[in-house]
Amino acid sequence: MRVANKLRLGILGSGCGTNFLAINSAIENGGFPAEISIVISDIESSVILSHARQLNIDSQFIDPGSYRTKLDEAAEAKYVSLLTEAGVDLVVLAGFMRILKGGLLSSFEGRVINIHPSLLPSFPGLDACQQALDHGVKVTGATVHFVDQGVDSGAIIMQDTCRVLDDDTPVTLLDRIHEVEHKIYPAAIAAIAKGEVVKNGRKTARTTISEC
Amino acid sequence: MRVANKLRLGILGSGCGTNFLAINSAIENGGFPAEISIVISDIESSVILSHARQLNIDSQFIDPGSYRTKLDEAAEAKYVSLLTEAGVDLVVLAGFMRILKGGLLSSFEGRVINIHPSLLPSFPGLDACQQALDHGVKVTGATVHFVDQGVDSGAIIMQDTCRVLDDDTPVTLLDRIHEVEHKIYPAAIAAIAKGEVVKNGRKTARTTISEC
Repeated sequence: MRVANKLRLGILGSGCGTNFLAINSAIENGGFPAEISIVISDIESSVILSHARQLNIDSQFIDPGSYRTKLDEAAEAKYVSLLTEAGVDLVVLAGFMRILKGGLLSSFEGRVINIHPSLLPSFPGLDACQQALDHGVKVTGATVHFVDQGVDSGAIIMQDTCRVLDDDTPVTLLDRIHEVEHKIYPAAIAAIAKGEVVKNGRKTARTTISEC
Repeated sequence: MRVANKLRLGILGSGCGTNFLAINSAIENGGFPAEISIVISDIESSVILSHARQLNIDSQFIDPGSYRTKLDEAAEAKYVSLLTEAGVDLVVLAGFMRILKGGLLSSFEGRVINIHPSLLPSFPGLDACQQALDHGVKVTGATVHFVDQGVDSGAIIMQDTCRVLDDDTPVTLLDRIHEVEHKIYPAAIAAIAKGEVVKNGRKTARTTISEC
């Protein structure tokens, strides 16, 4: 991964883009060599695209095709083209509601990261907060991980925790987890941009310790 | 569960009894109505029995029988007899290396608790620290839970966390988890003794909030 210059990020999102905004703020506040090169969404009216436009960041809608939960082959090829043309080093999934399995993962092998609203390996997949509430855990959190072919199964880069309260609903719990996400996602990207994250199989280590 | 008077604890352990000592210290320091009525071990030479004798707490060895990982039927009946004779309200597993499936669980239904060195549902069963290191998680912890017929699958009472460090071994990680255990196991027992823990299916809630 290129680290001598700025790490060029391509952010994929379908929703409100709060993680995108947190990452953008962290970059603006300085301290690590990264820049957001492009924001792509599968939803034309998504808030993340509006935010990107307001921030004068290159933003693109690409029709995902006919599937409900993944990109079709032609769409995935367009994502790869756009990301490649934008010179993206690291693909950052930020609330992107499509499973990636094909060309994008092979084109950006080991360079796609995601954030998940649980302490993986607990509660992978959809509705992580509901899963956590149903199981009755007292602690949950968020996980930044490399994306592989599985569901939320890639090597873990960073995790942090928050309490589950007795009267939590999925909404109140997710609000609290979002606060964790907005800290650790920028911190994980900063660590990658500084060349500190070393991946060895499914384990990652830090070459230097700069606590998130 | 009797809460008007002191909650009578029966502690089962096979090892060093550090959780037993933490529980005993917490009781001696006061603040919650509980007492340790009896300590039972399946290992005659176990350190937990030595500690109990030194503290003048009734301590008993009961031969577990011929199985390697569980109690045989006659042995389990002896455990039930001793616990019942000692007037035990709550059976506290503290490093007890035998699976309970039979008479003990039915005799003390909903009144057997255990502590596990992970944030369940991640890494149940043996070698939880090795499992956590192999998976590459950055956060783990300990879980106090009710014991049911499954492996570390009962309703969760309390959890707390600790960091996994890049250079952790199973031994260094377990040391750090033990520090967590020695806080939350007494805290969970205190909450039960005060009648604060309400179990509803696989969820537990606290009637009053006294943070661990």
